[in-house]
Amino acid sequence: MRILVTGAAGMIGRKLCARLAADGALAGRPIETVHLVDVVAPAPPAGACFATLCEALDVAAPSTAAKAIAARPDVVLHLAAVVSGEAESDFDKGYAVNLDATRRLFEAIRRERDRSGGAYRPRLVYASSIAVFGAPFPETIDDDFLVAPLTSYGAQKAIVELLIADYSRRAIFDGIALRLPTVVVRPGPANRAASGFFSSIIREPLSGREAILPTPETMRLWCASPRAAVGFFLHAAALDLERLGQRRSLTMPGFSTTVSEQIEALRRIGGDAAVRLIRRQADESSAAIVSGWPGRFDARRAQALGFAAESSFDEIIRVYLEDDHVPAVA
Amino acid sequence: MRILVTGAAGMIGRKLCARLAADGALAGRPIETVHLVDVVAPAPPAGACFATLCEALDVAAPSTAAKAIAARPDVVLHLAAVVSGEAESDFDKGYAVNLDATRRLFEAIRRERDRSGGAYRPRLVYASSIAVFGAPFPETIDDDFLVAPLTSYGAQKAIVELLIADYSRRAIFDGIALRLPTVVVRPGPANRAASGFFSSIIREPLSGREAILPTPETMRLWCASPRAAVGFFLHAAALDLERLGQRRSLTMPGFSTTVSEQIEALRRIGGDAAVRLIRRQADESSAAIVSGWPGRFDARRAQALGFAAESSFDEIIRVYLEDDHVPAVA
Repeated sequence: MRILVTGAAGMIGRKLCARLAADGALAGRPIETVHLVDVVAPAPPAGACFATLCEALDVAAPSTAAKAIAARPDVVLHLAAVVSGEAESDFDKGYAVNLDATRRLFEAIRRERDRSGGAYRPRLVYASSIAVFGAPFPETIDDDFLVAPLTSYGAQKAIVELLIADYSRRAIFDGIALRLPTVVVRPGPANRAASGFFSSIIREPLSGREAILPTPETMRLWCASPRAAVGFFLHAAALDLERLGQRRSLTMPGFSTTVSEQIEALRRIGGDAAVRLIRRQADESSAAIVSGWPGRFDARRAQALGFAAESSFDEIIRVYLEDDHVPAVA
Repeated sequence: MRILVTGAAGMIGRKLCARLAADGALAGRPIETVHLVDVVAPAPPAGACFATLCEALDVAAPSTAAKAIAARPDVVLHLAAVVSGEAESDFDKGYAVNLDATRRLFEAIRRERDRSGGAYRPRLVYASSIAVFGAPFPETIDDDFLVAPLTSYGAQKAIVELLIADYSRRAIFDGIALRLPTVVVRPGPANRAASGFFSSIIREPLSGREAILPTPETMRLWCASPRAAVGFFLHAAALDLERLGQRRSLTMPGFSTTVSEQIEALRRIGGDAAVRLIRRQADESSAAIVSGWPGRFDARRAQALGFAAESSFDEIIRVYLEDDHVPAVA
């Protein structure tokens, strides 16, 4: 089993590679090599019993796709992306990375497939996002609801979902797009995702530091832990995708909570002192981006296919404490 | 009012330009110039009281977009496309024309907008298709149902719809995507669209010629006449698009009918002799493409915005007889 991970230096990419090293196998087959690619050189996961190749490659560079696919990985875990806030502020960069570079990766797979006489057809697992949905929507969004993004990031993710369905239908690869919930609690430091504050209002107070809340407490989010997100990728890599039919995009399970409920969970686990470290400071640009995101799904298809996430925000905080918490220095 | 029409030599493009010539105005403003572009030089419409520039430009050529947008048209009617059957048989050509060339057109508008200091922001009306939908679907598809194409053509149309929403949200242009029903009765000769037989089984018998029916008579389609399709474009060019909000794709009204009901309408208008000219000859590739297309919509949003089509198949045949019928040579 040869695996390619793009965006391997990102938060989920690192955790995913650590999990591959711990498991030593994927989809029931022993891992031979993992090729880790990111715009900065990813660190090899500790304790891996397989060969790792860590490369600093900018996916936006035209030559990257061919280099990434040359070894014909059996599984491609494509996480590399410009995040929501940056794709909104830099139109060209967002499309160049999130759309064009992804398409070049798909075309590189197609060329290798043609060179192999059709024998090469990897599994491709793509990090999509619930940002493909946009208001107005019903209180709960089901698996048949329309995709109508309100950000360039969401548009780029939705476009790649369409490409994945078409390339899969044509048997160029066997692809699946996972619409990730908002991933919380992210370990620090913050990236440029507009949703970063959903994590920092938990993470920072638990380490004795102040955090800024830029939106009203009524804001509702659909969330899952980084550990659950890694689980989605591993499950998708092993799943029989014929069970999905032609619809290769799946909204991942998550937990629906409000910022207010997040804060009460923080109070139960971290006490009043932690809650007092949250400072309200309205930020219209963050609020404008995340307020168009949906907060509640009926992720029935994914659940029926065995994808699973946390069922309370307390549980999500506990996963953070177990996996990532850095205690405050006394 | 300066107008650009791409795909101007196609069936709907020609009828649209003829209508512009007859009206002399669009959206209540007199037309100064119409720039007609297609891969073969379009003919100027007869009797136009405005200047016409007819150019043979391949939209797939990198230089075409800048040439088409250089004169800063107020309205862009973008019809140029590789049709469904050809986009399915030629993967590269379909993406090159239906996606890449369209994106270059949008980027050319963006560059002119930047050069104008933001003053230039044209109306853009795009010919999308109900091929953006794919089975399985409910008996009637409403305006909130998911887009899930089952052809590369449908995927390309759906991707452009997402681009139109994003470019419009960013005020690069003021765009709308019209999901055209199957347009019948097309005047001959047949193009390479997989849906061509829906027209030929009416058109050919009415002129005393045999036509082939490649699918079962139970096949249901959502259809409108070429005259109605032209009306959609003119209405969209004049509409206040703020009324659409962020969702810039609209399923156009149409009439839901089966092939069997088409044939009965043909019998009422053309008699048994016409019906006897329909020859059943199963064609799996045509059937596979069109069987994934939906046959019934609740096109409520478009109707509320004033888009209108025929309300019976007899009416659709009568429009054909009035606008396009070439009687059989005795």
